[in-house]
Amino acid sequence: MSFLIISSQRDPKNWVKALKEHYPKLDLEVYPEVKDPSKVEFALSWKHPHGIFRDYPNLKVIASMGAGIDHIIGDNEIPKDIQITRVVDEQLTKDMSIFVLSLILEYIRNLAQHHCSKEWKPGSYLRPEDVQVGIMGMGVLGVGVAEKLIQNKFNVTGWSRTNKEILGVTTYHGDDQLGKFLQESRILVNLLPLTSETKNILQKSLFEMLPKGAYLINVARGEHLVEDDLLEVINNGHLEGAALDVFRQEPLPKDHPFWNNKKIRVSPHIASITNPKTVVPQILDNYERMKEGKELQNVVDREKEY
Amino acid sequence: MSFLIISSQRDPKNWVKALKEHYPKLDLEVYPEVKDPSKVEFALSWKHPHGIFRDYPNLKVIASMGAGIDHIIGDNEIPKDIQITRVVDEQLTKDMSIFVLSLILEYIRNLAQHHCSKEWKPGSYLRPEDVQVGIMGMGVLGVGVAEKLIQNKFNVTGWSRTNKEILGVTTYHGDDQLGKFLQESRILVNLLPLTSETKNILQKSLFEMLPKGAYLINVARGEHLVEDDLLEVINNGHLEGAALDVFRQEPLPKDHPFWNNKKIRVSPHIASITNPKTVVPQILDNYERMKEGKELQNVVDREKEY
Repeated sequence: MSFLIISSQRDPKNWVKALKEHYPKLDLEVYPEVKDPSKVEFALSWKHPHGIFRDYPNLKVIASMGAGIDHIIGDNEIPKDIQITRVVDEQLTKDMSIFVLSLILEYIRNLAQHHCSKEWKPGSYLRPEDVQVGIMGMGVLGVGVAEKLIQNKFNVTGWSRTNKEILGVTTYHGDDQLGKFLQESRILVNLLPLTSETKNILQKSLFEMLPKGAYLINVARGEHLVEDDLLEVINNGHLEGAALDVFRQEPLPKDHPFWNNKKIRVSPHIASITNPKTVVPQILDNYERMKEGKELQNVVDREKEY
Repeated sequence: MSFLIISSQRDPKNWVKALKEHYPKLDLEVYPEVKDPSKVEFALSWKHPHGIFRDYPNLKVIASMGAGIDHIIGDNEIPKDIQITRVVDEQLTKDMSIFVLSLILEYIRNLAQHHCSKEWKPGSYLRPEDVQVGIMGMGVLGVGVAEKLIQNKFNVTGWSRTNKEILGVTTYHGDDQLGKFLQESRILVNLLPLTSETKNILQKSLFEMLPKGAYLINVARGEHLVEDDLLEVINNGHLEGAALDVFRQEPLPKDHPFWNNKKIRVSPHIASITNPKTVVPQILDNYERMKEGKELQNVVDREKEY
């Protein structure tokens, strides 16, 4: 029985190091130099080349290196009986919460404008208590962000696929309540999981339900956003601007129109970075559970795709 | 008996409007068109031309339009028996606290760099729990900022002239403890009142006591800072940078070297804006107290200069 690491966009050396520190005897294979694919039962994966798991006949579990599992689910050739797990890490939630708070404060206090423009232009500002922030996606990250914003006196609402009850947050759910949720959102924060249902959800018809002058923050996935639609509603003045941390193509191509739009703030996918050291114990715990035939932690619902 | 408004850099029309709304019968004079200076007993003032109060023989109180009173105290020709008052306003404290938090988050998450540079350069970031913020000045604003930062998991220390005890904050005081306070401050926030003792306090010898790579935030007064010394310690790499909201000359002159220094973030004195509507009641309360011979609120200690 062996443990496979596969990471096609990030160097896996910190993962290898952390795994060996915690589990010196682990029989580790690092893609693409795999000696015996038939021995692999557990794979720790980030953005694997689709289709490769066909070569691993005894694979039982694919563990994502991060909170997102869209890069795994998006591969149609993964047999239905393989379990997929995600990372749930308190530090990831804290980092995401602080990042969203920092983007919102930058926006309401006009910091990017002051600090980038090199011009003396005093003006008014918004206060947390005057702003309603709508969070799409009330999973672990969404709830963490909501709590951080409430603590800092923002008005917060949440929207999710199914009904959630969260202290201090007015929650909406399902397609029927999406319009009401959007109408009230002065700032819209996207934290939805990327699924076949949520892909392209940030599009013109959704933006038009937001109040005039609303601001978009996308810290989930680039594929949630129809980029041309965002440019259209920003350029026609319906949206006041956007802060985007994720993109369909990363790094964002140098000639992409987002770079030179003064109302769009681009950051290089830095909302929260998984730290292998803090996450490896929960990965290895699931590896042990698999070996012992026990129920795994943080398993993804293959139907819901999150 | 009349009430004088004098505001030489800001249009006083919102003050006049708010005063008239609260006190329609107020006998109001607006500088410089004063009919009878001898009748004026109370002056609401912002940056008056020095020396003019000689012409008001019956003046008893000068009320600042804001939290700062350095613009009044700086005039040596104001008789010692005239009482000076400042504004203490919960909204000012809240606005200042949120502004300092936003500057600190912008710094630890590298937002200005990402959003101004238009380059895809992911990198690591600091977390609140890894950062020690030292606040100079533990008055109403300093305490408000400390509480906001503690709530957001920063480590906070405070320094002030005399000893203060504030829950959750390690406090230092006096010249003897300044060095120890500075040594630990990864981010230094200046919120001192401007007095003859604190003028030019942010100078080379102080910066050199900060740890290498420290960051300065000045949201108090431009006259606290020796500008050339800051440029020197930033250019030689001892300080990592600074966010400045106040300047010796405002607006900051177009040819000032701060504008083009990539490590200095300039904002146009927008930390907190006094709202006449919310502040006029406390000004009028002091006016009534004066008329009735009662003790005034928020009186400045002329010796301490704050």
